[in-house]
Amino acid sequence: MPEHVVVIGAVALGPKAACRFKRLKQDAKVTLIDKDDIFSYGGCGIPYYVSGDVSEANQLRTTAFHMVRDEPFFHDIKGVDVLSLTEATKIDRANKKVYIKDLRTGKEDVLDYDQLVIGTGATPRKLSLPGEDLPGVYYVGNMHDAEKIKASITKGEIGKAVVVGAGFIGLEMAEAFADMWGIDTTVVEIAPQILPRMVSPVLARIAQNHMEEQGVTFHLGQTVTKIEGEGKVQKVVTPEQTIEADIVIISAGVIPNDKLARDCGLDCSERGGILVDESMRTSDPLIFSGGDCAIIKNLVDDSPFFLPMGSMANRQGRVIGSNLAGASETFPGAAGSFCVKLFEKAAAGVGMSLAGAKQAGFDAISVMLIMADRAHFYPTKDMMTLEMVVDRKTRRVLGMQGVSANGDALVGRVDSVAAIMKYKPTVADVSNLEVAYSPPYAAAMDVLNAMANMADNALNGLNHGHGPDTFEEYWKERESGKYYFLDVREHADAEPFLNKYPEYWHNIPQGEIPKRFKELPTDKPLVLICNTGGRSFEAQIMLDGLGFKDVRNTQGGMAVLKAYGCDI
Amino acid sequence: MPEHVVVIGAVALGPKAACRFKRLKQDAKVTLIDKDDIFSYGGCGIPYYVSGDVSEANQLRTTAFHMVRDEPFFHDIKGVDVLSLTEATKIDRANKKVYIKDLRTGKEDVLDYDQLVIGTGATPRKLSLPGEDLPGVYYVGNMHDAEKIKASITKGEIGKAVVVGAGFIGLEMAEAFADMWGIDTTVVEIAPQILPRMVSPVLARIAQNHMEEQGVTFHLGQTVTKIEGEGKVQKVVTPEQTIEADIVIISAGVIPNDKLARDCGLDCSERGGILVDESMRTSDPLIFSGGDCAIIKNLVDDSPFFLPMGSMANRQGRVIGSNLAGASETFPGAAGSFCVKLFEKAAAGVGMSLAGAKQAGFDAISVMLIMADRAHFYPTKDMMTLEMVVDRKTRRVLGMQGVSANGDALVGRVDSVAAIMKYKPTVADVSNLEVAYSPPYAAAMDVLNAMANMADNALNGLNHGHGPDTFEEYWKERESGKYYFLDVREHADAEPFLNKYPEYWHNIPQGEIPKRFKELPTDKPLVLICNTGGRSFEAQIMLDGLGFKDVRNTQGGMAVLKAYGCDI
Repeated sequence: MPEHVVVIGAVALGPKAACRFKRLKQDAKVTLIDKDDIFSYGGCGIPYYVSGDVSEANQLRTTAFHMVRDEPFFHDIKGVDVLSLTEATKIDRANKKVYIKDLRTGKEDVLDYDQLVIGTGATPRKLSLPGEDLPGVYYVGNMHDAEKIKASITKGEIGKAVVVGAGFIGLEMAEAFADMWGIDTTVVEIAPQILPRMVSPVLARIAQNHMEEQGVTFHLGQTVTKIEGEGKVQKVVTPEQTIEADIVIISAGVIPNDKLARDCGLDCSERGGILVDESMRTSDPLIFSGGDCAIIKNLVDDSPFFLPMGSMANRQGRVIGSNLAGASETFPGAAGSFCVKLFEKAAAGVGMSLAGAKQAGFDAISVMLIMADRAHFYPTKDMMTLEMVVDRKTRRVLGMQGVSANGDALVGRVDSVAAIMKYKPTVADVSNLEVAYSPPYAAAMDVLNAMANMADNALNGLNHGHGPDTFEEYWKERESGKYYFLDVREHADAEPFLNKYPEYWHNIPQGEIPKRFKELPTDKPLVLICNTGGRSFEAQIMLDGLGFKDVRNTQGGMAVLKAYGCDI
Repeated sequence: MPEHVVVIGAVALGPKAACRFKRLKQDAKVTLIDKDDIFSYGGCGIPYYVSGDVSEANQLRTTAFHMVRDEPFFHDIKGVDVLSLTEATKIDRANKKVYIKDLRTGKEDVLDYDQLVIGTGATPRKLSLPGEDLPGVYYVGNMHDAEKIKASITKGEIGKAVVVGAGFIGLEMAEAFADMWGIDTTVVEIAPQILPRMVSPVLARIAQNHMEEQGVTFHLGQTVTKIEGEGKVQKVVTPEQTIEADIVIISAGVIPNDKLARDCGLDCSERGGILVDESMRTSDPLIFSGGDCAIIKNLVDDSPFFLPMGSMANRQGRVIGSNLAGASETFPGAAGSFCVKLFEKAAAGVGMSLAGAKQAGFDAISVMLIMADRAHFYPTKDMMTLEMVVDRKTRRVLGMQGVSANGDALVGRVDSVAAIMKYKPTVADVSNLEVAYSPPYAAAMDVLNAMANMADNALNGLNHGHGPDTFEEYWKERESGKYYFLDVREHADAEPFLNKYPEYWHNIPQGEIPKRFKELPTDKPLVLICNTGGRSFEAQIMLDGLGFKDVRNTQGGMAVLKAYGCDI
């Protein structure tokens, strides 16, 4: 009898593990089981199928060379047998058996295994709301949902859409509705910001402003209490309002499918998810797991990490496939990098946001920088906004997030930092990180190096300032006279603001400070501002040196204030 | 007396070190010396000024906020005194003095220093050719050259240009001439490929083909023996031909300006360049150096490294500035990452090419991959060609190079690998490198991970094949019958080739191999081919498993063969 490997779950991790193993052990038998009849698809592509960027649903389950990854494909091309519409109902570890049920016929059966892979993925979280089961409420959890959503749109049934949850998938779906189909789209989020836990409130608001400019409506800090409709969804209700909806997408996170593992006694996390070691083995050495149903290691603080992403599943699947064949490969964990396209901008990041770092117990600060993403004289440059989160005591880089119009350029910087996260980098490591240089692609002192330099200056107390949120607070209090707002740009730049706010706006160009500093008050904080924060930093140092006790520069300057939407 | 820091050389490293130090020690005096009257400019931007992408020469020496970095700028904004058109002629280390000469008046003077920085840069290599001093022969070494070149072009004096040297600057200049001005442009290179030492001959030919499509002519493996002209340049002569030229750009590398350091007894490399430690100190602890005149560490093999790039100079300059002020910062070295825009494609890389690795004593192999740079179903995808160089014994990644239409995406992958080079990564580290995933920006199994997986398979003997150069050799011998060419794509893809080469081209779709393998000869090598190398790899494994002894898959498949220009 050839060795038999059974793989439960045929999306991302399962197929990768099965095919990798089969390539290494051609004489083994591999059985891949899935509850669905559509499997081995790129679920992350669903928003782009809904938007129409991807025209056919099948494109999400074809190879790069246009073959559909269906049962015959796996059999003929990969040598892997697929049992679709088949549920694994129980694992008997002592006897190395998997109990299965054919969902078409109800027929039950038992498979003997030598080694087993659990790649059961995750299930979208339901909110247990009244009306949540109405037709027209979707979770974007599988291709069937995707096809129904697309069909509704193309039939012209959708005029208004409500997305519940402003995480990646929620925002991607909002873009799909609003951008390509002109659907009146509203996002409702329980947290007070979009992309909660992923980016700071400031970056979130910058991204949100951009999406609002593109026509998406947001209701943040609101809890959906019920969904209403006669025969189909019609309204989404929060304590604050009732929103009309022809379709509702609930995108409130996912829950790892660990029941099968839990029931057979494998170690699982109390908070859900199958525990695995670096070789992706569960507490049973004959059983591997990974992907959306497993818990890996967070490389930032070595804590348990639930990171349900197709990229994780694919890479882990290969490690499992190799180890099934006797290799000793490891998957070290992840730093949680992400990227998301939001109309004409991208948001991306890695590691912890400031709030996340503080919650994890770090004495963290963050700094914000806006700078050209290549030589500032090169015509195709875009301005990139980055925020870096660092630990005060160890100077470790805990995370970095950003927003930019050039997604590839932003993702490139994020990936560079992600690459070194497992080495626990300090700010100095990123100051000297090697970014390949040529004016069309990077700056000589690249935005990434400059970001770390700024964090270094902040940690050393050389750069002391605030972001646009704090500036906005100061500015709202301008009539109190508590702050002295000093624009350190050249007069021509400052002039419109001097004219608009003659009582509150002041101007001394940075180069004139040494001879004009006596014009400045010494009894109140000086709030410095320039275009992007560079000159206000230098002015702050000058004024510090001249004996001023409370000088605060506005990180990101007018550029970030504008993106943040500060009313100035 | 305040502390006095003297900085010799005011391009890139010098100004950065001077200004950083001055920010940290505002009460110190800083003097910045330069031989030229135009300084603190971005020399790497010269090709883009010549092309017209950058319209004014001054843009290369302005800050991001449009202030020209001239003497008053450094004085007023940075607190740094500049002595331009001033040459440092001698360093007296015992007495801490720098002898200088005003190049306008010839007047000599002496500066006392407490600490000194040597940032004298490098000088373009001259070729000592007859006629090299004719008007119209340039080295792109400074802004004066750049302005003269641009003036000649805009006056319509340039119909034909010859570039000697196919390194970065040479190719960038060739693009500037040909792309924006429609100048008949020829590149002459002594090596048999463009970008010698930087990329493999295969990647070089792919890039060259693209440039040829854009109208640039190449003469490779040719040595210029003389330059001819009456009163101005008219011809460039090689043993093979005489090329007409209204302008000649010599771009044959640069030589570090280490004479000042050498003359005062500082340790220098035998091959040129000032030796520094990780703190960027020379053998005299009061004297720092960096940038194009210094030798740093190659992070791939810890060997001495001459890497004259503006990005190096800027980052090292900051380290020097901090250390002048008493910090203990380090610059660990570099892995030699690079990128260059070549019309509509980019070439980029890091670490060693295969030839370089072998020359450095590694038992190295390389593998080549072509794959979409994001989800293959996402409409804006481009095909990225990558080559990874790995050490057979240690499985270390020694380098990676690539060519792609999306420069930002390519540079992002290169930067990720560059980021981990100092940690001496193995193939497994890159297999699991965390690339932020979302279909618009990356693939779930990203091209970077797939590249490392392929290297892993090659090292394990699982993937055995060849690149387009070897395929071309086999194909040229097709009439000998020594090789059996097997297309493993579906019949429709193979059909045009079956019709064109009925005697030599054979087709069994990969999925049909298990039932049709008996059609194949067992007495000669099977040369497999598909679209991009993925299916031919799987077919190769199948055939290996079926007992075939010599199966060779064509890495990169038809896609790379086409880019390589194979006549098929």
